[in-house]
Amino acid sequence: MIASYIAVMEHLFQYEQLYSFTHAVFLGMGCSSDHATTATKVLLSADLRGIDSHGVARLSGYVRLWQAGRINAQPNIRVIHETPSTAVVDGDQGLGLVVAPFAMEIAMQKAAMVGTGWVAVQNSNHFGIAGYHAMMALEKDMIGMAMTNASALVAPTFSVEKMLGTNPIAVAIPANHQPPFVADFATTTAANGKLEILQRKGLDTPLGWVQDQKGLSSTDANILKKDGALLPLGSDREHGSHKGYALGSIVDIFSAVLSGASYGPWAPPFPAYIPMPENMPGKGLGHFLGAMRVDAFRPADEFKSHMDHWINRFRNAIPVDGQERVLIPGDPEREMEKERMTNGIPLLPIIVDDLQKTGDIFQVALTK
Amino acid sequence: MIASYIAVMEHLFQYEQLYSFTHAVFLGMGCSSDHATTATKVLLSADLRGIDSHGVARLSGYVRLWQAGRINAQPNIRVIHETPSTAVVDGDQGLGLVVAPFAMEIAMQKAAMVGTGWVAVQNSNHFGIAGYHAMMALEKDMIGMAMTNASALVAPTFSVEKMLGTNPIAVAIPANHQPPFVADFATTTAANGKLEILQRKGLDTPLGWVQDQKGLSSTDANILKKDGALLPLGSDREHGSHKGYALGSIVDIFSAVLSGASYGPWAPPFPAYIPMPENMPGKGLGHFLGAMRVDAFRPADEFKSHMDHWINRFRNAIPVDGQERVLIPGDPEREMEKERMTNGIPLLPIIVDDLQKTGDIFQVALTK
Repeated sequence: MIASYIAVMEHLFQYEQLYSFTHAVFLGMGCSSDHATTATKVLLSADLRGIDSHGVARLSGYVRLWQAGRINAQPNIRVIHETPSTAVVDGDQGLGLVVAPFAMEIAMQKAAMVGTGWVAVQNSNHFGIAGYHAMMALEKDMIGMAMTNASALVAPTFSVEKMLGTNPIAVAIPANHQPPFVADFATTTAANGKLEILQRKGLDTPLGWVQDQKGLSSTDANILKKDGALLPLGSDREHGSHKGYALGSIVDIFSAVLSGASYGPWAPPFPAYIPMPENMPGKGLGHFLGAMRVDAFRPADEFKSHMDHWINRFRNAIPVDGQERVLIPGDPEREMEKERMTNGIPLLPIIVDDLQKTGDIFQVALTK
Repeated sequence: MIASYIAVMEHLFQYEQLYSFTHAVFLGMGCSSDHATTATKVLLSADLRGIDSHGVARLSGYVRLWQAGRINAQPNIRVIHETPSTAVVDGDQGLGLVVAPFAMEIAMQKAAMVGTGWVAVQNSNHFGIAGYHAMMALEKDMIGMAMTNASALVAPTFSVEKMLGTNPIAVAIPANHQPPFVADFATTTAANGKLEILQRKGLDTPLGWVQDQKGLSSTDANILKKDGALLPLGSDREHGSHKGYALGSIVDIFSAVLSGASYGPWAPPFPAYIPMPENMPGKGLGHFLGAMRVDAFRPADEFKSHMDHWINRFRNAIPVDGQERVLIPGDPEREMEKERMTNGIPLLPIIVDDLQKTGDIFQVALTK
């Protein structure tokens, strides 16, 4: 996947270039300086980690939502209900990129007080990569969790209709000498970003990624534009798609039913040109953030040493012939981040164009 | 799957018959009356719900572990560390069937006090079906979660070695007029019980369930006896097996690294004839139980009404041609339970034999 990204890339940008540009765009939208900084860091963490579909490629999408009045650049983000270990946050239609870190801070404060903290968020928008928010917990020796619902692109097992988003789950777990364990994945067989790569290249998908409008197996990378759907992790019933469907449902319920956000097929769409669903049962998009203090279970040093042992054992599992090694969740993204921080972030010409047009709205130039 | 079970079944037993028999066996092992009752209920909940591999078919396995001194029938199950929202429980080598409900009670008590409760368990044994423990939360208007690690049968993506158990996750969510949402699934493409069914029939597995000793794709239902492995949910890298591997890993770490149990390839084996792993990094098997009070987020009635709305919408999604309907997680098991409570639980002759031999050890008869 990584190789295929790079093969079609043209322009290399330094992190600092993209940072200044993106920060200026968020300021242009009317975000406070603090909010612009947070939103920029979260958004660009996707580009650094190689999840290109969730980084600056989405900036114009956020701007269009703001232009359509669906994103509030100056939200009053606040806790509307709480117990010692839980809270519900109203994102006031703010950028999820800002709302989710706010909620994660609350989760960590609660974990500091009573061992764990769990925050459900309503009235928010897309929050970038789930992994960023989960990883906030690491430096405090906490396990971080983040999930979000999203616009419906996924058909449950046996369903023709799209009912769920790609609903990602991220879990970040600290280690000592080893880098942390960071899982961050869509609860579908393939994320939408992978379809977009194939679309640009005019290639088909493998079997098991998508279905057509009748629910039949398909390999058309453009099938979502033809009333097709992404498939839950597992692909079909025989290979456990009911488990991926259950996982995506749990994310939807924790993020949106617990919080009072809009769930299932009523989740608000990311593209601003798609009308909002009718009869929405809640407010905006929902997230669910969690933090568990490691020493609420056993001494942190002891836990982290065992995580080193765990990671070391798994990393040294004998690989299948032809594979270099067994990976630990988070390895590819961490290696990509190191690479891109040094050598720059490659962007497709179409993305560079899109960024320049977005910059024009706010008289902000993207220096090449 | 359900149909294939029934096709080869011979003897039908009433729940009460199996209950008396199993209860007497646990008493014979030296369990207290309370423990025998709990263990029997948990074990038989698997038979009722159609998860035949985890019910009375396993009773002789528990007895053999007890005979080998690996199960303590009179454990001193106790909390060894806690915060307001967390605890670690030492199962004292007891039956997981008894230890897990003890831990779940603690989780619910903590949730009653501070909104949520999270209990990691060390020094335990197999706990039956995860769903039973998660469902304990439902009547208190809580969301219940349960997971456990298990003996290593699963190869991570790109690994020849078996490093993880089938590590199930269960999440139970209450509704109002609708029955609850109950997901309970192994983090593999297919559970081991499904392989056992195919073995008995002399059939092959579909592609994507297992790999051989070299990590190559296989359809041999007996491959686990030939150094093969089960595959994580997703089957292969192209279909997201790294996500199933991450999920199984999270279950392993939450259940065993957080608690101080033995993790990864060092998890204790269920078959008593397999020697315990060397250099075990923790004590026994581990579990992780969680309870979240629904009204720690929003009023319980409001939440449960929205769950009704959620369930109703998903249940009425348009099905693919040839499929009767879209299922809600928990539907098949609940329908099976109703059926078997009325008409009895079918057992294979080989299981009946095994039960009778087990009964003989304790002078307990299984009435046909």
